Amino acid sequence: MSADVLAHIDATLDQRLQSLFQLIRIPSVSTDPAYAGDVARCAAWLAETLQAMGAEASVRPTTGHPMVVGHLPGPADAPHVLFYGHYDVQPADPLELWNSDPFEPILRKVGDETHIVARGASDDKGALMTFVEACRAYIEVKGSLPLRVSFLFEGEEESGSPSLAAFLESAKDELDCDLVLVCDTDMWGQDTPAITTSLRGLLGQEVSVTAGDRDLHSGMFGNAAANAVTVLTQALASMRSPEGGVAFAGFYDDVQMPPAERRAEWAALPFDAAAFLGGVGRAVPAGEAAYSVLEQIWARPSCEINGIWGGYTEPGFKTVIPAKAHAKVSFRLAAGQDPEKIRAAFQAHIRSQMPADCTVEFADHGLSPAWAAQADNPYLAPALAGLAAEWGSSTTCGTGGTIPIIGALNGILGVDALLVGFARFDNRIHSPNEKYDLSSFHKGMKAWVNVMDDLAKV
Amino acid sequence: MSADVLAHIDATLDQRLQSLFQLIRIPSVSTDPAYAGDVARCAAWLAETLQAMGAEASVRPTTGHPMVVGHLPGPADAPHVLFYGHYDVQPADPLELWNSDPFEPILRKVGDETHIVARGASDDKGALMTFVEACRAYIEVKGSLPLRVSFLFEGEEESGSPSLAAFLESAKDELDCDLVLVCDTDMWGQDTPAITTSLRGLLGQEVSVTAGDRDLHSGMFGNAAANAVTVLTQALASMRSPEGGVAFAGFYDDVQMPPAERRAEWAALPFDAAAFLGGVGRAVPAGEAAYSVLEQIWARPSCEINGIWGGYTEPGFKTVIPAKAHAKVSFRLAAGQDPEKIRAAFQAHIRSQMPADCTVEFADHGLSPAWAAQADNPYLAPALAGLAAEWGSSTTCGTGGTIPIIGALNGILGVDALLVGFARFDNRIHSPNEKYDLSSFHKGMKAWVNVMDDLAKV
Repeated sequence: MSADVLAHIDATLDQRLQSLFQLIRIPSVSTDPAYAGDVARCAAWLAETLQAMGAEASVRPTTGHPMVVGHLPGPADAPHVLFYGHYDVQPADPLELWNSDPFEPILRKVGDETHIVARGASDDKGALMTFVEACRAYIEVKGSLPLRVSFLFEGEEESGSPSLAAFLESAKDELDCDLVLVCDTDMWGQDTPAITTSLRGLLGQEVSVTAGDRDLHSGMFGNAAANAVTVLTQALASMRSPEGGVAFAGFYDDVQMPPAERRAEWAALPFDAAAFLGGVGRAVPAGEAAYSVLEQIWARPSCEINGIWGGYTEPGFKTVIPAKAHAKVSFRLAAGQDPEKIRAAFQAHIRSQMPADCTVEFADHGLSPAWAAQADNPYLAPALAGLAAEWGSSTTCGTGGTIPIIGALNGILGVDALLVGFARFDNRIHSPNEKYDLSSFHKGMKAWVNVMDDLAKV
Repeated sequence: MSADVLAHIDATLDQRLQSLFQLIRIPSVSTDPAYAGDVARCAAWLAETLQAMGAEASVRPTTGHPMVVGHLPGPADAPHVLFYGHYDVQPADPLELWNSDPFEPILRKVGDETHIVARGASDDKGALMTFVEACRAYIEVKGSLPLRVSFLFEGEEESGSPSLAAFLESAKDELDCDLVLVCDTDMWGQDTPAITTSLRGLLGQEVSVTAGDRDLHSGMFGNAAANAVTVLTQALASMRSPEGGVAFAGFYDDVQMPPAERRAEWAALPFDAAAFLGGVGRAVPAGEAAYSVLEQIWARPSCEINGIWGGYTEPGFKTVIPAKAHAKVSFRLAAGQDPEKIRAAFQAHIRSQMPADCTVEFADHGLSPAWAAQADNPYLAPALAGLAAEWGSSTTCGTGGTIPIIGALNGILGVDALLVGFARFDNRIHSPNEKYDLSSFHKGMKAWVNVMDDLAKV
């Protein structure tokens, strides 16, 4: 254990906080061209910060905002980790809902806690800097790191990462490593850092049903003429099983559930399903009854109708038989499911529900596979231990959302990833008054010191 | 037979047409307050026209536009008929789509046919005047009618007849009669006048499903949280049987099918279901397979989703779990069905489909029972014979639409009605370039002479 490094972090917390504040003050909003200069300045600041620690680091242009790549040496026989973070942020608006300048970080006392309040305080500048400052403190005390570390900082994550895949392909050899570390996810609860071991994928489809070539009067044609809205609702309803699952052929065929170890960990988590659903006005889990709510969200594929429209939708009434009906349908995919195969099965099922008079068309909206950490990843247990040494506990978890960059990092570089999260659930990321707990920052840095020591032994 | 009256009509056709033209030139648009003076002038013209024929006639104020009531004497032992028509018209706009002034009637030759082109030429001034001019011609030749005739002309039919029921209640004794005659429906085909013996009723319901108290992110809640759009589509789909019918309990319980005589007549009609559906881009009857297309439309109740909306419906994609979903649903009701009973059964069924987390609310949009002529109406066969004597053929038919005034006339006055139609299907009523065939007008008048003679013998 590196008790000396941990003590050094405690002693120099304010200096590390000032470093984070410098980064936050650069308004690196990637989606708005007006901030392109700030985004570039932010990349330069990071490269210089890495260089000041002794890293070989530089800003790398892309067709969009630049990447920052850096390398710090370590023992030749130790693992080589690549740390990924993003330095761009969401726009700050609506500005009038902020209680302070979004790009002038402040510390705010809230009860026993202290919040760092600013755009990017949590997502992802605060999280990114836990690792950077952990490395700097380590080097300041010991002269070098216990393992080889590379850095990859992206400036377009909040804009859909348009340049990432191409850059990874071009820099594949340089970024060759044993493990990817990412710090852009949540804790489990208030005091338990988490390693996210699965993400769901996404498949979006817009469905348009056409019945004949015009709207009709229900008095003249009601019963005899196919109604596009009726046909669409029938087709969508046919996809849902009475047990809460998805009812079309092949949907669950390739689903890989997490290993028993993960499911046991999740079952042991203090999770109150009633409170979770009650917080959003629901009470009864709507998914497959055979799975817990956490499994329904983290590990089971879902199908949601995100929107539907057709026929007369204005005030009053019009007794029309609509010729057109539309729905936006999305699937959250589980590990093992091939998005293209699910898309084909979905479209085949909907087509099979069309009566002779109706046609259906589909438009694509998103296609990302799920991601799951390797069940036998040798770095997982040491990393969990390193986190627990600082916080008292740690856990794995899943997330029901989709982070396409993880699939790219994993797939293109060919190495597994650990998604380590210190962010609390209530950090208001993407919203006004975004915050990061000072304890997340402070304990996060110290946890990384432990994790580096533990990973170095693998 | 009154060959002398028929010959007189042939000889004086132009004079009768000029009478219709006078009526058409008064732009009696009931829905637009700017025309209120014209509507009143139109009522006065009709009262004076009836008075000039020897009728006791007057304009009767209502809280809306006035009624016109008139009485012509006849033999004491002959039946007493009440003729209903409406003198108000739909607005003429869009004016730029008319090929002539909508309120300056013209005769237009189209192939072998001559069309009277104007707003109201068919609906309902032309149709109404076939009866008025038939009575005038009869009196001019014979001095009096073969049966007692009363007239009721309404000025608000195109605005939903808001004053009709109250007026009928107040004038119930004065309007006491043996039979109501209405001339506001279509012919069967090009050369066969029709007596419509059934109309469907209407029940409109707006359905709003609420799941919890806010929209949710499908990544964080997908599977576990109830989705209002999914629940609504499931509930609507559950109402439809695989055979094309309506699947909730009690829906068909009280349906009274038309008598075998009517169904045989309809089966014998030259009707090409493929051409009927093909004309609107459909090919396969969507209703109950056990019934013909005409029966599906005229005599079987239907359920149509007229509109549906919920969730994200703009361009692009949003992976939301909607908390709200809405549909407008309407039923065309068959004879025997009680609209309030069907509404209660529908609402009970939809409620039964709600999972624990969802609530549903309903809003009313229309509630009219169906109407069917009495199976043993003694005037039906003589009236059909009178029509056939002029046109060579005649038939009964149904209509899938809803005409609430018929229920009011029938229900409040307590006498059956015959709906006699000379209007061709392509008359463009309510649309630009509305027309009435000169043959509809000419033969219509002569047919009424026959019908009056035939009814007088009952």
